[in-house]
Amino acid sequence: MGKYVFGVDVGGTTVKLGFFDTEGNVLNKWEIPTRTHENGSNILPDIADAIKKEIVSRNMSAEEVIGVGIGVPGPVDDNGVVHKAVNLGWDKFNLVEAMTPMLRGFKIRGGNDANVAALGEMWMGAGKGRKNIVAVTLGTGIGGGIIVDGRLLNGATGAGGEIGHIHVQDGEEDECGCGNHGCLEQYASATGVVRLARRELERSTDASVLRDSELSAKAVFDAVKEGDALAVRVAKTFGEYLGKGLAMIADVVNPEVFVIGGGVSKAGDILFDYIRPVYLENVFHASRNVEFALATLGNDAGIYGSAKLILD
Amino acid sequence: MGKYVFGVDVGGTTVKLGFFDTEGNVLNKWEIPTRTHENGSNILPDIADAIKKEIVSRNMSAEEVIGVGIGVPGPVDDNGVVHKAVNLGWDKFNLVEAMTPMLRGFKIRGGNDANVAALGEMWMGAGKGRKNIVAVTLGTGIGGGIIVDGRLLNGATGAGGEIGHIHVQDGEEDECGCGNHGCLEQYASATGVVRLARRELERSTDASVLRDSELSAKAVFDAVKEGDALAVRVAKTFGEYLGKGLAMIADVVNPEVFVIGGGVSKAGDILFDYIRPVYLENVFHASRNVEFALATLGNDAGIYGSAKLILD
Repeated sequence: MGKYVFGVDVGGTTVKLGFFDTEGNVLNKWEIPTRTHENGSNILPDIADAIKKEIVSRNMSAEEVIGVGIGVPGPVDDNGVVHKAVNLGWDKFNLVEAMTPMLRGFKIRGGNDANVAALGEMWMGAGKGRKNIVAVTLGTGIGGGIIVDGRLLNGATGAGGEIGHIHVQDGEEDECGCGNHGCLEQYASATGVVRLARRELERSTDASVLRDSELSAKAVFDAVKEGDALAVRVAKTFGEYLGKGLAMIADVVNPEVFVIGGGVSKAGDILFDYIRPVYLENVFHASRNVEFALATLGNDAGIYGSAKLILD
Repeated sequence: MGKYVFGVDVGGTTVKLGFFDTEGNVLNKWEIPTRTHENGSNILPDIADAIKKEIVSRNMSAEEVIGVGIGVPGPVDDNGVVHKAVNLGWDKFNLVEAMTPMLRGFKIRGGNDANVAALGEMWMGAGKGRKNIVAVTLGTGIGGGIIVDGRLLNGATGAGGEIGHIHVQDGEEDECGCGNHGCLEQYASATGVVRLARRELERSTDASVLRDSELSAKAVFDAVKEGDALAVRVAKTFGEYLGKGLAMIADVVNPEVFVIGGGVSKAGDILFDYIRPVYLENVFHASRNVEFALATLGNDAGIYGSAKLILD
């Protein structure tokens, strides 16, 4: 019986790999480049090679390894079908079927990277011990991962948890990366916070430390901590959008905890001061007792969660 | 090995019971009154008696019955804990633990009525053969039931799928039954459609057949079919709210099909003419290919779904 699993997190630039025991201890982690040319056709063989090398270098037998979980930046359904991963050059194909011949005898599982990161946070991070979690990654965009009764919600076409594209604002002129207008991530991602700040700086003539600094989500929340009134208005607008968005999500999936990660989460607990009141005002009463927690695994959430895919 | 299951749907006035084989054929169905006095303490014993009588009258042995599933008008979590069922006089208690001594040897399962109805539609109704479904009941309020990869989404406190209380409108003066303002069911339930119609009749001086008829959701959609311009405006507003709401839900759970039931659904496919365009305008592209279908089991969805709880 195997005692180890590999967790793989495929990004547009690098592939992160982790070697874990079944208790969730990471025994090794490393990266290899993502070779996206030739429609990304080298990516899976490169991963297989890296895993075989690791097994050989440890003088292990293949039987000691249960399997390899792979997180992908695109929708992946319950059958392991990747529906598209633009950043990797991948079109629709079955990841599990493609990988199996390269790693004979190993269990192979695939998942969307944001979903898998949620699973990682549930296994060894901020959601440890919980079974109903919504993980929200506030980065360049907004990623979401939803766990229901301990299992990932992938959805019909692997697009479960695409919460960054919930429509929250009519009449938005700027276009979201998805082609729609008024998506949640246009206001509450790192990029969204910068947009809100830029608008507020244009709209108002008030003095603000933000006028002299390079705009970033971090700069905004640093200014909030210093009591900058204009930055506080930006944070309130951010909280208005995200608090309402999370309330809608809770009305649908009724989680125990929201785990907030990504660049914006580096601002810390102060985020919750702006999210929670709006959330409570908008959510159905049965979901009022939800917790808000900061993600704890950082960029490693993906390798943890991919490894956990194998153990479910 | 058992060959039969009972499905029970507890309502505020009557308890519906169904006797099924494991293939989903209903062999008998009947009702008993719901005795809600004394905090509803007679309801479970009454159900147990009714089931025992049915078994005796059929000259069956108890071994032929696998179990009894029970749908309840209130939140029920994965452990069978009812968190409250106001219409029955029930406070928080574990339904499965309470019922087990009354029906020894039977598997007992409980679920929220709207969730269980969704399971019924998946088993033998409009969602047959599908594994990712959102069932929407447009009645006095809006009930929702969500099935993910073939399993009911109950959520942390049994409030999964409470989609009627998604906040969709700021600044609403009327209060929703839940205490919030601007919930989806204030606009898209049967009651909501009547409210929208009343507002439009007050706002406008246009002639309309609705001015002479008793207002109901049915009257509104009948008028739409006759080409009544004012009724069409009401239907458009209804579609605007519900289409956006369903798009949000799809961004979260990515279903294959929305199954629409309840009183408003008697208007028929014409509903989808008002919902679908708004849905497509607002939803993330990966969820555009969803289907819209009318529920087919009507008031029996609950007994079907409760029975199915036992077979999962």
